[in-house]
Formats: sequence, C-alpha cells, structure tokens
Amino acid sequence: MSKQITSRQENYSQWYNDLVIKAGLADYSAVRGCMIIKPYGFAIWEKIKEILDKKFKETGHSNAYFPLLIPKSFFCKEASHVEGFAKECAVVTHYRLKAINGGKDIIVDPEAKLEEELIIRPTSETIIWNTYKSWIQSYRDLPILINQWANIVRWEMRTRLFLRTAEFLWQEGHTAHATAQEAIEETKKMLEVYRDFAENYMAMPVIKGEKTENERFAGAINTYCIEALMQDGKALQSGTSHFLGQNFAKAFDVKFINKEGKEEYVFATSWGVSTRLMGALIMTHSDDDGLILPPKLAPIQVVIVPIFKSEEEFQKISKKALEIKEILEKQNISVQFDNDDTKKPGFKFAEHEMKGVPIRIAIGQRDLEKNVVEVARRDTKEKTFIAIEELDTQIPKLLNEIQDNLFQKALKFREENTTKVETYDEFKKVLEGKGGFILAHFDGTTETEQKIQEETKATIRCIPLENKQEEGKCIYSGKSSKQRVIFARAY
Amino acid sequence: MSKQITSRQENYSQWYNDLVIKAGLADYSAVRGCMIIKPYGFAIWEKIKEILDKKFKETGHSNAYFPLLIPKSFFCKEASHVEGFAKECAVVTHYRLKAINGGKDIIVDPEAKLEEELIIRPTSETIIWNTYKSWIQSYRDLPILINQWANIVRWEMRTRLFLRTAEFLWQEGHTAHATAQEAIEETKKMLEVYRDFAENYMAMPVIKGEKTENERFAGAINTYCIEALMQDGKALQSGTSHFLGQNFAKAFDVKFINKEGKEEYVFATSWGVSTRLMGALIMTHSDDDGLILPPKLAPIQVVIVPIFKSEEEFQKISKKALEIKEILEKQNISVQFDNDDTKKPGFKFAEHEMKGVPIRIAIGQRDLEKNVVEVARRDTKEKTFIAIEELDTQIPKLLNEIQDNLFQKALKFREENTTKVETYDEFKKVLEGKGGFILAHFDGTTETEQKIQEETKATIRCIPLENKQEEGKCIYSGKSSKQRVIFARAY
Repeated sequence: MSKQITSRQENYSQWYNDLVIKAGLADYSAVRGCMIIKPYGFAIWEKIKEILDKKFKETGHSNAYFPLLIPKSFFCKEASHVEGFAKECAVVTHYRLKAINGGKDIIVDPEAKLEEELIIRPTSETIIWNTYKSWIQSYRDLPILINQWANIVRWEMRTRLFLRTAEFLWQEGHTAHATAQEAIEETKKMLEVYRDFAENYMAMPVIKGEKTENERFAGAINTYCIEALMQDGKALQSGTSHFLGQNFAKAFDVKFINKEGKEEYVFATSWGVSTRLMGALIMTHSDDDGLILPPKLAPIQVVIVPIFKSEEEFQKISKKALEIKEILEKQNISVQFDNDDTKKPGFKFAEHEMKGVPIRIAIGQRDLEKNVVEVARRDTKEKTFIAIEELDTQIPKLLNEIQDNLFQKALKFREENTTKVETYDEFKKVLEGKGGFILAHFDGTTETEQKIQEETKATIRCIPLENKQEEGKCIYSGKSSKQRVIFARAY
Repeated sequence: MSKQITSRQENYSQWYNDLVIKAGLADYSAVRGCMIIKPYGFAIWEKIKEILDKKFKETGHSNAYFPLLIPKSFFCKEASHVEGFAKECAVVTHYRLKAINGGKDIIVDPEAKLEEELIIRPTSETIIWNTYKSWIQSYRDLPILINQWANIVRWEMRTRLFLRTAEFLWQEGHTAHATAQEAIEETKKMLEVYRDFAENYMAMPVIKGEKTENERFAGAINTYCIEALMQDGKALQSGTSHFLGQNFAKAFDVKFINKEGKEEYVFATSWGVSTRLMGALIMTHSDDDGLILPPKLAPIQVVIVPIFKSEEEFQKISKKALEIKEILEKQNISVQFDNDDTKKPGFKFAEHEMKGVPIRIAIGQRDLEKNVVEVARRDTKEKTFIAIEELDTQIPKLLNEIQDNLFQKALKFREENTTKVETYDEFKKVLEGKGGFILAHFDGTTETEQKIQEETKATIRCIPLENKQEEGKCIYSGKSSKQRVIFARAY
C-alpha cells in the first residue's frame, strides 16, 4: 500500500495537514480561516469535552451560557484587554439584508445599521463581568464558579486546522471570589485539572509554569500555563489559567460587602482550553502512517477485521467477531466490526492505522480453527496471537499498556529534547539544531525577552512552577539571574 | 410566605417572565434580545441535550461542527431561503477595531472592511450543502447523517426569554440521501424522535403534523412539526423536521452517481429543536408557586430539608439525611441535602418549589424517632409519611408517578381545550373564549389561511399526520374540504 501522507521528515507541516484531512478529522471551509470539524474529529473532541466537563463539575463548577455578541463599549473598559483583542475581532455592524435589482442581488441594508457595533466574543470576560455585577452583592453570593463551552472568533491572519483558526471551540471558566488568595488557589487548581487531563488522558507530558509579563493574557495579573513539546521540537501552549485580580471587577464596578461589612472589589479568574488540544494530540503521538490515539480518547478503541475467502468463511468469522465485540463492550470498550465487503483487508488495515485505532483484531479461517485472533497495536505495530477466551482480560490490559507507553514515549522525547545552555551562542546553536525546550538563565526583563524573540523567534514558554532557584547569569544580558526559564519556538 | 411571582390569572405573560427569573433559569443581558442561561436553566438544557444526543446517535447520526459565519453570497443561492432569513440576520462587515484620540476611544477600523460580508448563521443549510458538495461523489458516500449542536442568531424584533431570542442554542440535523423516499423516511423518523422526547421526557403531549405551504421552512418541500398546547390556550411549535427535496443540492450543485451509473442531485433533510423547548417545558407544567419539572429532566430530583431546634438535633438529622441521600443515589436519583443553616425551612420549601424539585423530603426530630420522613410531591402538593427503610423502593416509584401524572394532566388539559367547530362565527367565539386547538375544515388555499390569520391572529398549526378524512366545508370560504386542520394562536 502506498503512503497516503507526506512523511514528517520530508515536511512536518505538510504531514500535519495531510494527516488531519486523510484521517477525517477536519476540513477547510469556504469561510476564510474557519474549519469544519468532521464527525471523526468531533468524536474525539466530544471525549475531551466529556472528561473535562466531569472534572469541572467535580471541582464545584456549573455550566452556563452568555451571549455571543458583546457591545463594543464593553471592550474599552479594561485597557490592556482591548489592546490585546482589538486587532483581531469580527464586528457586526448591521442586522438585515435587502434584495435589489428585482431580487437578483442582495446587499446589506444601509438602513439597518446598529447604533453600537457588536463584537463576536474573542473571550467572554467583559460580558460575564458585566453580568456578575448584578449577581453579586455580598460575600454570601461568592464564590461564583461558572464554566461555558462556546465558540470564539479571533481574526487570525495565518490559520492552520485546529492549531490556529478564526473560529474555534473552547471552554472558558470564569470565577468570582471574595479574596485574592482564594482566586489564586482556584487558578492553580484548574491548572492542575489541565495537567492531569493532558498527562493522564491525552498521554501528553506537560510542564506547569507561569508566563512572563510579556506573554500574559490581556487583563491578567498572572497567567499560568501548561506547555507541551511537539515532535518537531516546537512548543505548544495547551491550556492557560489566569488570575485576573480585581481588574475586571474594577472595569465593571463589581463590588461586594465582605464579612466585616466593608465594600470591596471582587477577585476573578478565568481559564480555558480549546480545540487546539486536537492539534497537540495529533502532533504528540502520530507517525507517518497516520494518527495515533491514546485509548482513553479514541472513539473506536478496537477494530475487528475479518479475513475470508468465501461467503461461508465470512459467516463463521462474523459470528465469532460479533461474540468478541459483545464481550469487549461489556468491559466498556468501544469496538467496531468492519464487515464492509467492498474493501480488502490490507486497505482496511491502512485506513484504521490512518485513523489511529489503538488495537486491531484480525480473524481468519485458520485463527478460528485454533481459537485465536491476531492482535496488532497501533503504537508499536507489534502483532501477537491471543486466545479468544483471554481477550476479555488481555484487551483491557493492552489498552492500558498502550496508554502508558504513549505517555512514556512522549516523556522520553521531551527529556531528550530539553537542553540546559549557559551562553547565547549555545542557545542559538541548540535552537537551530535539535530545537526543543531550552533551559536558560534570564534576567527577568521584557526588554531582554523581546530582543531574544526578535533575534531567534524563540519565546519564553514559562517559568516552571516550583522552579529550582540557582545563581546564574542571563544568557543575553549577562545580568545576574536566580532561575532558569524555558525557551522554545512555539506554535 | 408571600407570593414571589405574579399569578397566571393576573398576567400570564408576566407570570412566565417572573418564573424564569426567580427560578434562576435565565437572565436578560446587556445585548439586545440575547439572554444569559443561568446554571440551573443550563442544567436542564444539558439534560435535554444529553437525552436527545443519545437518541440521535442511536438512530445512526454523528455530530460535527460547521462555521458560525456564512458568506453572504451563499444565501442568495436558494431563493426562498434568502427571502426567509434576509430580514433578520446579523452581518459581519469588518475584522478589526482601532484606537483613536490617543487610545481613549475605539472605532471600527474602516480599513478592515471585508470584501464579502459574512452572516452569522440563522441556520446552516447553505454552509453545510456547500461542504457536502466535496464529500459526495457516489451513492457509496450516502447517506450522510450529521447533527450539529450550535448557537444561532436571528434578529428578532420582539424577544422573550427562551421563547424568542436573537441568539439561541439548538441542534440542527442535516442529512443527505440517494432517494426521495429515504429522505422522507428520515424526516419522519426524526419527527418521531422529537415526539417521543416531548411526551416521554418532557411529559408534554404533542400532535405530529404537516405544515401548510404558508408555514413551511424557507427552502423546504415539506415541513413536519410537533405542536404543543400551553396553559394559556396558545400553541407552541416544539420541533420541526424538513424534507428539502433537491432544493439545496441544486443550489449548491451537489450531484452523485447512483447505482445505475447516472448522475443525480442529492436529497436532503434538516430537523431541529432549540432552547425554545425550555419555554415549552415551563409553560406546560408550572403553577403560581413556580416551576414544575418532570423528574426525567430535573437536575435535582429530591431535596432533603432538615428541621431542627438544636445543634444536637441537626447533627442527628444530618447523619440520617446523608444515609438517605446515599441510598437514593445508588438508584441513580439526584439528591440535594439542603443543610444551609442560615435559612429557615419555610423559606427553603418555597425556594425548592420555585425551582420545581419534584420531591421534597423533610426530616424532623420526631420523624427520626418514628423512623419516617415527610415526603411532599411538587406536582400535587400532597404530603405523606414514608418509613425510611421503604424510601429506596417508594421514591423511584413516586418519581415515575409524578412523571406520568404530569403527562396525563397535560393531556387532559389539551383534550379539554381542543374544540371542533363548524362555522367561522363559532371559530372566532372559541378563539376569543377558551382558546386552545380548534379543529376546523379548511379549503387548503394560502389565501384563506392568510385571511383567517389577518382577521383573528390564528394560524394553522398543522395538518395532523394520519388525519381522519371527512367531507366538510371550509369555515371561511365554504368550499369543500376533505379534512380538518388545527388552528390556534401561537407563540
């Protein structure tokens, strides 16, 4: 079977695009920068949503829904927020179309101009804090712990499927607290939820850290993040959690009476992950034959392919395949029996590899006679024969092994691609060579950070939490530094 | 405890608004016509989504996601579609804001004007059929059975929480088929899914029917619907399923090679329900004390309220309450133990009645001694004492009884408020009096339908499926008619 997609070595970026299309994850749309999430891709996103949603609820959050459209004036209330988002937002100016030329053409009705333009939400802090104003009077109304699953529009100039699109899907948590300490704890708690999800479900190791001032969310006091390393040595920010202090409360005049009877501004957090995680998932594990999915996020965990020469064989194998399907489904394993008789086994094998199905079971006539099946792992491509009566214990075990192996492999990759450097020359050499995470001393100034970025396109991904304190000299300025930060080129 | 909301008799419309706000279901927003769905309201919507989503998947559908923004030119491709939606759509014309006056003010950047304006989807037929064009070549690619959960904007002039809002949440199924017959079957299958959901989960009886030409979806050959009757005698269209024929395939040039090797246009359906169902749910069951929820859609099915005079009593009662909670949760019943000690029992009772919790369990010191609890039904307000060891069997039984009672009560109401009339005078008298569904003969012309609507504000809700055929005379024109249709004033 010929290769269906460009290899990673040949062109990593093209490999990614080919894979997204060929695995049926997403498609380009007729609308600039907007993607179509196809059923198979959406099924993975639904798994991600379901698991995260459960974790949000377990940590006391409720879902709600706020308007898509935000009055322009709301954006101006928080200075750094408007600066961060003004350059990339979709603006609604009219509310009606009108037929002209006897109905042949249609134009925007100039008489239906809005008094105040509306912005399609690029994030919802402003509309939500404008709402919280009427919900919060006293400390008894706090905390408010709300999450929203929504679509977002940011008018990005260069877009890539899942990684950067004008419209994307995400969740945004928006919480309100009586004290700064409680809000900071919330910020860190949700960061930990993201880490747990990334590592234990996506099988993607991440580093928890704090952003520098330069990389903070527009309107935040502090931005925390999880950073992952992709196979091409570039970093991908996979989730952020912001401590917003009283910035939005002040912008929208949200005060409460505290326990001591004094009026005070409310403290805020916001945190989010998006369909970008799909890009991270793809790039962390996949290979030149297609997608590799960790079993916990795979819509189909096991596919059964019958191998037969006659209708009689097909009938016998089908019967056994359906029995196996039933046995595995009882263990909460999702199984597809691929009984399409218009495609040959080899074609099916390649197709399921492209789609990243973790385990493939092949059954032929001889296997039936011996009461075994051939089991192939997608991650290592290893094949073994397993007795049919052992499948109910062996398959769940194998799924766990695959999940674990993917994480360990990605972790090993990250460790091998994390380099400590002491000088700027060394820094540039590593960056141009193997790439990856670079641990280097940094003087803590935005000036130095921006100079390094201009000269090398590397950014500070984060200052790791609980970072080791050590004396050193900034690789760029030579000024004294107390800790190393993580640099990388990033998506 | 004083009444918290306007009574239905005093002002039905005000009662509805008061209830939505006081029960914490939704809130007005700063954006004209857009609502905020609050956590309690959203929890009900999540239940609705979860149940419907399961039914869609069981009937072979997959979820996907298509862009929010649709190029203006797409709308012009299907003539009746653009006519139906052009007058009420939000138009994006620019993609950037710009600071002026040294950053004090912000305006829409005139240099960031889009070449072609984008419409926020009022429904997605156009963008989806433009996409299907590249997905469909042969009959082997069919059927395509896709559903999307999404937000929609229709610039309504008069809005009401849940019932009619500029932005709302919905699901829209969009399927593609090789034959008209298969598409019609799909249309009816999904109508039946809606009926089943309305009756067996919402406990809301509905009539399945076909719309007249005048009331059809813009671009449909046939629109089927489920119609429910609200307590004020007005009808509410609760779901629609459209057979679109080849209209959208022709507009977007979507052809396929059929089994005979001939090129043909693809057949389409679309079907949807929205957050409007929340309005229907509220108006079908609730009373002057607040919301009444059918147990299958109640986020909290049982609330336990402790009644105590001392800390010691509270401790003992709490222990028992938590035991009961655990027992009921094992039966998959959602239980809240309301142990807030800042509110009195009477206040809590009123609050849980307002929120429509189906069953309230009250436990006092004496009950503990007798090993019983007081169980109150929200629907009938009946109270009984039940022995604690019987709760695990009695509470599930009671929840079923409540679910059934709500349906029977609503069905009885609809039957009592469905009237056969033979003359236009009688028609007008019933309409002005008790309202409700009116079964009348009709000559089948759009002219008559529109005249009746102009004169009485009543519309034809539907021609019931499997309608009894009988000879009669149109109440308006006197022309001969073969069947009665359902008239009503509607939301």
